[in-house]
Amino acid sequence: MAADYPRDDDGRVDVDALLDSLTLAEKAGQCAGIYVGELDEPLSVDDVEGLVDSHHLGSATPFGWAGSPHVAPHDVVAVANRLQRHAVEETRSGIPLLIPVDAVHGHAYVDHTTIFPQNLALAASFSPDLAEHVGRVTAREARATGVTTNYGPTCDVVRDPRWGRTFETFGESPCLVGAMAAAKGRGLQGDSLDSTDSVAATAKHFPAYGGPLRGEDASPVEVSPSTFHRVFVSPFVDVLDAGVRSVMPCYNSIDGEPAHGSTRYLRDLLREELGFDGVVASDWNGVEMLHADHRTAETSQEAVGDALSAGVDIGSVNGTRHAEAIVELVEEGTLDEAVLDEAVRRVLALKRDLGLFEDPFVDPDRLDSVLRRADHTDLAAEVARKGVSLLENDGVLPLLGDEDVLVTGPNADDLTAQVGGWSVLDPSEGATLREAVEDACDGDVAYEPGVTHDGERDIDAAVDAARDADVAVVALGEGWYLHEFGPSEMSGTTTGEFPSRHHFELPEPQRTLAEAIHETGTPTVLVLSAGRPLPIPWASDLSATLFTPPSGTEGGRALADVLFGAEPGGALPVSFARSAAHLPVHHDYVRHPRPIGEDEHPPSYDPLYPFGHGLSYADFALDDPSLSETTVAAGDPVTVSVTVENTAAREGTQVVQAYLHDEYASRAKPVRELCAFERVELDGGESTRVELTVDPAAMGVVDSGGERTVEPGAFTLTVGRSATDGEAVQVEFSVE
Amino acid sequence: MAADYPRDDDGRVDVDALLDSLTLAEKAGQCAGIYVGELDEPLSVDDVEGLVDSHHLGSATPFGWAGSPHVAPHDVVAVANRLQRHAVEETRSGIPLLIPVDAVHGHAYVDHTTIFPQNLALAASFSPDLAEHVGRVTAREARATGVTTNYGPTCDVVRDPRWGRTFETFGESPCLVGAMAAAKGRGLQGDSLDSTDSVAATAKHFPAYGGPLRGEDASPVEVSPSTFHRVFVSPFVDVLDAGVRSVMPCYNSIDGEPAHGSTRYLRDLLREELGFDGVVASDWNGVEMLHADHRTAETSQEAVGDALSAGVDIGSVNGTRHAEAIVELVEEGTLDEAVLDEAVRRVLALKRDLGLFEDPFVDPDRLDSVLRRADHTDLAAEVARKGVSLLENDGVLPLLGDEDVLVTGPNADDLTAQVGGWSVLDPSEGATLREAVEDACDGDVAYEPGVTHDGERDIDAAVDAARDADVAVVALGEGWYLHEFGPSEMSGTTTGEFPSRHHFELPEPQRTLAEAIHETGTPTVLVLSAGRPLPIPWASDLSATLFTPPSGTEGGRALADVLFGAEPGGALPVSFARSAAHLPVHHDYVRHPRPIGEDEHPPSYDPLYPFGHGLSYADFALDDPSLSETTVAAGDPVTVSVTVENTAAREGTQVVQAYLHDEYASRAKPVRELCAFERVELDGGESTRVELTVDPAAMGVVDSGGERTVEPGAFTLTVGRSATDGEAVQVEFSVE
Repeated sequence: MAADYPRDDDGRVDVDALLDSLTLAEKAGQCAGIYVGELDEPLSVDDVEGLVDSHHLGSATPFGWAGSPHVAPHDVVAVANRLQRHAVEETRSGIPLLIPVDAVHGHAYVDHTTIFPQNLALAASFSPDLAEHVGRVTAREARATGVTTNYGPTCDVVRDPRWGRTFETFGESPCLVGAMAAAKGRGLQGDSLDSTDSVAATAKHFPAYGGPLRGEDASPVEVSPSTFHRVFVSPFVDVLDAGVRSVMPCYNSIDGEPAHGSTRYLRDLLREELGFDGVVASDWNGVEMLHADHRTAETSQEAVGDALSAGVDIGSVNGTRHAEAIVELVEEGTLDEAVLDEAVRRVLALKRDLGLFEDPFVDPDRLDSVLRRADHTDLAAEVARKGVSLLENDGVLPLLGDEDVLVTGPNADDLTAQVGGWSVLDPSEGATLREAVEDACDGDVAYEPGVTHDGERDIDAAVDAARDADVAVVALGEGWYLHEFGPSEMSGTTTGEFPSRHHFELPEPQRTLAEAIHETGTPTVLVLSAGRPLPIPWASDLSATLFTPPSGTEGGRALADVLFGAEPGGALPVSFARSAAHLPVHHDYVRHPRPIGEDEHPPSYDPLYPFGHGLSYADFALDDPSLSETTVAAGDPVTVSVTVENTAAREGTQVVQAYLHDEYASRAKPVRELCAFERVELDGGESTRVELTVDPAAMGVVDSGGERTVEPGAFTLTVGRSATDGEAVQVEFSVE
Repeated sequence: MAADYPRDDDGRVDVDALLDSLTLAEKAGQCAGIYVGELDEPLSVDDVEGLVDSHHLGSATPFGWAGSPHVAPHDVVAVANRLQRHAVEETRSGIPLLIPVDAVHGHAYVDHTTIFPQNLALAASFSPDLAEHVGRVTAREARATGVTTNYGPTCDVVRDPRWGRTFETFGESPCLVGAMAAAKGRGLQGDSLDSTDSVAATAKHFPAYGGPLRGEDASPVEVSPSTFHRVFVSPFVDVLDAGVRSVMPCYNSIDGEPAHGSTRYLRDLLREELGFDGVVASDWNGVEMLHADHRTAETSQEAVGDALSAGVDIGSVNGTRHAEAIVELVEEGTLDEAVLDEAVRRVLALKRDLGLFEDPFVDPDRLDSVLRRADHTDLAAEVARKGVSLLENDGVLPLLGDEDVLVTGPNADDLTAQVGGWSVLDPSEGATLREAVEDACDGDVAYEPGVTHDGERDIDAAVDAARDADVAVVALGEGWYLHEFGPSEMSGTTTGEFPSRHHFELPEPQRTLAEAIHETGTPTVLVLSAGRPLPIPWASDLSATLFTPPSGTEGGRALADVLFGAEPGGALPVSFARSAAHLPVHHDYVRHPRPIGEDEHPPSYDPLYPFGHGLSYADFALDDPSLSETTVAAGDPVTVSVTVENTAAREGTQVVQAYLHDEYASRAKPVRELCAFERVELDGGESTRVELTVDPAAMGVVDSGGERTVEPGAFTLTVGRSATDGEAVQVEFSVE
């Protein structure tokens, strides 16, 4: 059938001609997707084949998401090839399918794949290189199973850490999120979309998802226009610059406009102002939600028209209803067929660039040599190690390796919790922290769970075991979840109980376990593994604290490596609050008056652990800052150089962070914003000169329309080891 | 001197001619105010006389605020008359002064005045009539002491109850705040500003102050434009409609623009769109904060220019610097003198309308017949009673009056705490709850404080006393504070400790006292007196709970009346959250999707006590709702009638509340909004028909520019006894 597509002089499929050859129903079908699995109604591969026939559907997600029964790699490949064969050989138009997946942290909804730590752990590495590698590996494994499109990278800036999707983000800083997400996008797409190593990447969730009111998933993001652009839209600019081919709107309304139906956000902002010409795909049921939830559309059909008109090219899941509605709307004259044509053109162009018209099939024989390749799992272990932040250490860490160790806590031996959401519940490979400690330690290793995530088991047994141990490793935190801490049939938790947006602190049993162990006098190391920066003010009494977001199949190994001497490579991509009553807590809060006196206000930023914090097993000093120039023209970058010295006897890692402060501006600005960073690894006693370049955009004042203007005046650059480093160095420059 | 003012044909002072007669420095002085007392530098009345000479200052606050040493009525009158005499007789222009005060809840910074409950208590009455009376009495007592202007009514809608100024507001509902503030404004101004019963009212703090980030006073209010208009600006529209003559900007920046320097908010929105032509007076030091805190002005001088250009007519406190800066800016050509003239014209017109050119003096002999008149203090007691909300009652209340009663807790015998912020610390009159219970009860009344606000005293003694009592009244809550819970030298608390924005729950000792008393088996009544709706989920175990914001000098008497049988007349003007982790909690949250299923999301609105809640000693049933019409034209009101029956044997009060729900709209709207209400008092067995008229504006969809458009479609009106009343009645109507 492939030979029959109309082609241009270069032999490429001619999208316009192909579009012209399609019936209205076939065009509508290209804008509609379907799933295989359990959702509104259970659908099998057979069902989907039938719908591809009846509704000419152009997109299907038969695996790679939570509700699909297809998880085994060879099964998955067979499904992908079967559906593509059906689309190409059995339909009149012969157009291959898009096959998108939720590969949030590796292709983790397919078994025997490399499951990376969650994005929040990747963010702790402050290493865009690493993010790009993760993207490459994810794309390679996904494409090998027949995937064409990934619903990622996540570009959301988390501004309310109660939110259940905090762990999916790259943290609180627009600068860090933009850099990491752009790198991951580049990695997913590679140099050419039609390679066997690449998939189309989807920047999500446009334009603002990360600060929902009350921390409730998909509730309105209430921010002023300038903050909207400065904080939330900013990373999308970086990611679109990286050439990401697809964008997904957020579920929320912003300023009363649900993104899925918003011409203002999708057409005016995304396409006109930001120049995006790729495919916009709905977030699952986001189109129908215009009718059912936001109630801006009186019927489902109207919702489809609103979404397509606003700029949503593909309705991702309710494809039959979606395609039917499009046909009806065009036939009744409500929807201009030119709007439909525009959308279809973009979908067909993406399929063309993915090489699907040439060969939509994947070779099952490649699977064994691609999935969980040794370099892939090594990368996952590296990310996991660099995603661990050492928050406190009285010197107990690193362990020597010959201690008798008690491993305890609900996250010590729970691979599902260790891996976290957006993945199969029972990965076939991987080692838990307990298993990895047993492997790594020459002393005796005892294990007592002590408590569950939200209840007691046998704290006494754990305390007894602690008395016999040289050191206790208490692994606390959260289990597997996604979105609003469910779905409960997968997470195994009760809706509204921990973890939930209302339960932002660890349940009493977990804290009780840690404190009871500590009271034995045995040095006690807390390993907090959670999707959110849960307040743990009481943990500063313990001997040491490590924090990691869910760390993937290799996370246990990585954590054990860190306990026994590997450098904990992470710096916090998100501030730790002292309590829920302190929220929101961001390093980049906007300056403001304190009417009855500075001394009457508790500090505006008083985190338990600041953004950027992460101790090393070595010691680092920063010194001798110098600037490329002390006066720059508006629109020029400035580079600060600083000497970084590892003053310890062993190797170590330091994330060197530059924060910008604008002395005066025409609008109230943040007191500081992360504007540049560099991950530095040095041997003991070694030093190096690090150059950090501040993009001129970072100096800008963002107005209500999102315009960034660099205003003349004085700036201070602070280079340090966290947002509030007392030993940071400073330089000043002026913009003329 | 008075005879010399230029006058028009009607004999009124000719403002334009007077303006023309002034020197530049004299005009600048009319835009500048000063204080007497302790602030940046201590200033005496002599000092201020000197500054009125040297800088031609047109406004002075010699008393009626926290830092003034002048609190005795006759002292205050003498100061007022002396300053006016100086201004009128000893200066070249002879222009009398504006004398503004912070009479937030009565003229409470002057002793021997009627100190009303705080606005949040007044709001609980849901009675605009009462608010108007409070305004009248406040104005009468203030004007009698020489005051010309009150810095109120407060029009702020509280959206983050961690905020230290929650008690000053009329609550969370724009509808309620608008109605109450407009009524209070009408009351303050009366029919004619030049009456001895009237002062100029100041709508504050424009345009948005009530939802500062983190609950931190004066931090940015981060909301989308449509929410900004719908929630925060809306009450100002009502209050400006009521003819309030002055407006005060808020300290905050909104969308990066500090209100005091914002042409967008003060000139475009307030003057152009809302048509306000009165005086804008800075909030104390709000002008200088543009330089020192927001840092949008590089110098103090620039800040003055920014503020005046934006529309701030009077710099309220740093008058000398302010006036000097204006002169310099005009002389150097930076500021157009026409802008200054505009401001001065408004100031002079206000002085004219206040009758100050005719007679700026007050008669000290009136004081005794005006201050704390019996009808004034009776009104304060009535407000206090109607400001008490009965949250829980297992039947223990009302008491019979012959019980042996234990009164305990830190707020049982603390008149300062009972009165609350914005008032003298030691009112000369008034009775505490303990004193009032002793007066009202025929049984034995024991008193044991038990605890302080944040520490233990003798809980055992209180428990022992509880064992001997028939009932225990435990008075918990917060003490005296304003703004960010200070100033600490007045509040007596330590900055950052309870009460603070981070401490939103009662300290452990207070809870321990209540629970220890309860454990004795003696029926335990909690009286929570606090400026904020502190989460008290544990209190539902007790026998009854009453809540009141600080209730003024007559609050003890009112609370005792309620305990012994007077109807608790309040309904909550603000939702009680279950914990800080639940914030924000509003009845009018905006609808939104719940992506992985309704059942996975804890409810978006799950308060401990809902907005509008307040039990009666009687019982009320609503029935038989009917509409004036079921189809209305866009822009027409609709009236719902409902039968309200007191089904009990005794008299009682019910606030009947109507909530509007728009089925579909072009933007995501709140699930419900309070749109009308009526306070109904009925004898036992009595019933009445209540009519609630829904203003067409309430039906509108608010867009980003603040435009309200009533769209065709279906609406549901729910009439009930709280925002979530399970026995509410519903009617539906359509807009065509």
